[in-house]
Amino acid sequence: MFSKEMYALGAQPSVIREIFEYGKQRKAQIGAENVFDFSLGNPSVPAPPVVNETIKKLCDTMEPTMLHGYTSAIGDQGVRQAIADYLNRTHGTAFSAAEFYMTAGAAASLSITFKALSEQGDKIVLLAPFFPEYSVFAKSAGMEPVVVKCRESDLQFDFDALEEAFDENVKAIVVNSPNNPSGVVLSKESLLKLCAFLEQKQAQYGHPIFLISDEPYRELVYGDIQVPFLTKYYGHTIVCYSFSKSLSLPGDRIGYILVPKAADPTGEIYKAVCGAGRALGYVCAPSLFQFLVPACLGQTSDISIYQRNRDLLMEAFNEDGFSVAKPDGAFYLFLRSPEPDAAAFCEKAKQFELLLVPSDSFGFPGYVRISYCVATEMIERSLPAFRALAQSYGLC
Amino acid sequence: MFSKEMYALGAQPSVIREIFEYGKQRKAQIGAENVFDFSLGNPSVPAPPVVNETIKKLCDTMEPTMLHGYTSAIGDQGVRQAIADYLNRTHGTAFSAAEFYMTAGAAASLSITFKALSEQGDKIVLLAPFFPEYSVFAKSAGMEPVVVKCRESDLQFDFDALEEAFDENVKAIVVNSPNNPSGVVLSKESLLKLCAFLEQKQAQYGHPIFLISDEPYRELVYGDIQVPFLTKYYGHTIVCYSFSKSLSLPGDRIGYILVPKAADPTGEIYKAVCGAGRALGYVCAPSLFQFLVPACLGQTSDISIYQRNRDLLMEAFNEDGFSVAKPDGAFYLFLRSPEPDAAAFCEKAKQFELLLVPSDSFGFPGYVRISYCVATEMIERSLPAFRALAQSYGLC
Repeated sequence: MFSKEMYALGAQPSVIREIFEYGKQRKAQIGAENVFDFSLGNPSVPAPPVVNETIKKLCDTMEPTMLHGYTSAIGDQGVRQAIADYLNRTHGTAFSAAEFYMTAGAAASLSITFKALSEQGDKIVLLAPFFPEYSVFAKSAGMEPVVVKCRESDLQFDFDALEEAFDENVKAIVVNSPNNPSGVVLSKESLLKLCAFLEQKQAQYGHPIFLISDEPYRELVYGDIQVPFLTKYYGHTIVCYSFSKSLSLPGDRIGYILVPKAADPTGEIYKAVCGAGRALGYVCAPSLFQFLVPACLGQTSDISIYQRNRDLLMEAFNEDGFSVAKPDGAFYLFLRSPEPDAAAFCEKAKQFELLLVPSDSFGFPGYVRISYCVATEMIERSLPAFRALAQSYGLC
Repeated sequence: MFSKEMYALGAQPSVIREIFEYGKQRKAQIGAENVFDFSLGNPSVPAPPVVNETIKKLCDTMEPTMLHGYTSAIGDQGVRQAIADYLNRTHGTAFSAAEFYMTAGAAASLSITFKALSEQGDKIVLLAPFFPEYSVFAKSAGMEPVVVKCRESDLQFDFDALEEAFDENVKAIVVNSPNNPSGVVLSKESLLKLCAFLEQKQAQYGHPIFLISDEPYRELVYGDIQVPFLTKYYGHTIVCYSFSKSLSLPGDRIGYILVPKAADPTGEIYKAVCGAGRALGYVCAPSLFQFLVPACLGQTSDISIYQRNRDLLMEAFNEDGFSVAKPDGAFYLFLRSPEPDAAAFCEKAKQFELLLVPSDSFGFPGYVRISYCVATEMIERSLPAFRALAQSYGLC
């Protein structure tokens, strides 16, 4: 009568959503100010003023049948050119508009890319910890996810584990730096080593292996941290980008896929991307938000607020005795659970009205994700609760 | 190295797009004013003022992290309630917000619905002429499209052909009224007969058969034509709606799926819809455009312009001796080709700088689609060309 598989996907919403829903109920019971909800990766810092200013200007100046009309399926030419120019200026690359395909955000970018690449029997390597929907998108595209855990010590690549996981059926590997759920930024050294590893595997198996770089958090880094632009270091790189997090407009669904000529000399993969977009029911990325992009390139919402949040929590966690992965970007902290079962730890945390996400669904048990894209004053109020939680485990 | 199937889909863009691209080149050669392009279904009448007014107001008044933030995957509760209230007021129904799932437009509505329903071995009946992407979405969801032609005389249902096409593997049938590509509105009499036919087939096969009503053109009807609301006449109806055409914002991607309780007493299909949306990479329908919806319900762009266009063309075609299906809605005319090969007729029309779409890809050979969502003055200037085309076939 209906698809059991889709039912299962719809009936079992993500753990994150479940905690979020619990939070809503709990806030209704005891007052919103008494619940410390660190569950959702929904940007808390408003979009920069340029966003609403540009939207209003577009409404006032652009012909409505253009502003709200279909763009071509690949996206508006001028918008794609503006993105190419911006990346070329910023990273010293030489992309053209023809290498970009506009999408309805990161989930669309990934779903379309996976579907475009997928052939019978393909595997895709997911580096744990990873955003759980990767697995949904991969399976939906007909690829078998192969989970490879990063090193526990620093969450950089574990090359022994990679060596063991690779075989000739691996078509692609997904890299996400800064990382959701850990906030870890992969070092240039690690990435160069990965590129060399992939080059060697390509030679060994005699076919391309695609490095899919999922980059919604590229701009959300703190201090002098650099996020290497991977197309410069590995030919078969495809970039999946979203403006959701950098511009704080996750609901508006706007991003792109970059299929560099170097990864696709014949242009066939780009065409497969077009076909996959069509097969998945995307017609064009939302037009008004495409036209918004050129005015916003290189801008971000005020990320100093996220940095302040991170610093507040890190200082407290160090004092409390919690152990946390080095958090250089995104708006997540990955805190080691003081007991092996992270879900049990999260239940315990609830007693202190702290809502944390156990890391099991990220493919990396034993941790919790703390989303610090929340109001700074909530963080300040939450610190005694974290202290009490640490004390309950005898950490301090 | 990539999906051959997706490549094929991407490399062979629709016939419509091909003609549109030819038109762009031709306009560059001989001047835009000398080419009469009737190829695209892109609304030519601007969105009603309420659209831009509301967008600007939302920018000025709504908290940016709400306006641009994620809504829940099913869509904002208030927006869904507003749609339910509007439909209940208009059609005397009794829907609740919980029966609606917000989508990124009609293509998303259909793709998600097909995927939610699809089980191994399922067939889906497409009534020709039909929008060619139906077939892409059905195959992508794993359903086998079964094409059943409507009656040549009036493009209403051919029940003998339906009887022949149905077997126990038919899970669903898609109805699109007003119709793309013909502009024909299905009569209430025809629809009631179809409902009775489907009831009988459900009883015969012992399982539900879903009537998927694709309604982007519901409001685009002329004169006193009524478009029956199908949930009132058949229990297993699912409505796929888009605001693209009625509000002239096809690029902005906003619509919904209505899964009535009557079609889904256990709520399992709705959950499968949620799962399918997730599997296809939709996170939530574009938030700003969700929030736009309540202010625009029941409004349309100025459709009197389309009516004027239709009347101008119909008057001319009657005089020219062309034969046209009764065009009560949408912004399409379905003109019978004076020679059996519609593609040859379209080539001939190009000699008169008329760009028409042959009907073969709509599953109904021997006709051309004329999209009259164009400037009225272009239609006026095109009439001598149509006259000359008719004369070249000896029609007048």
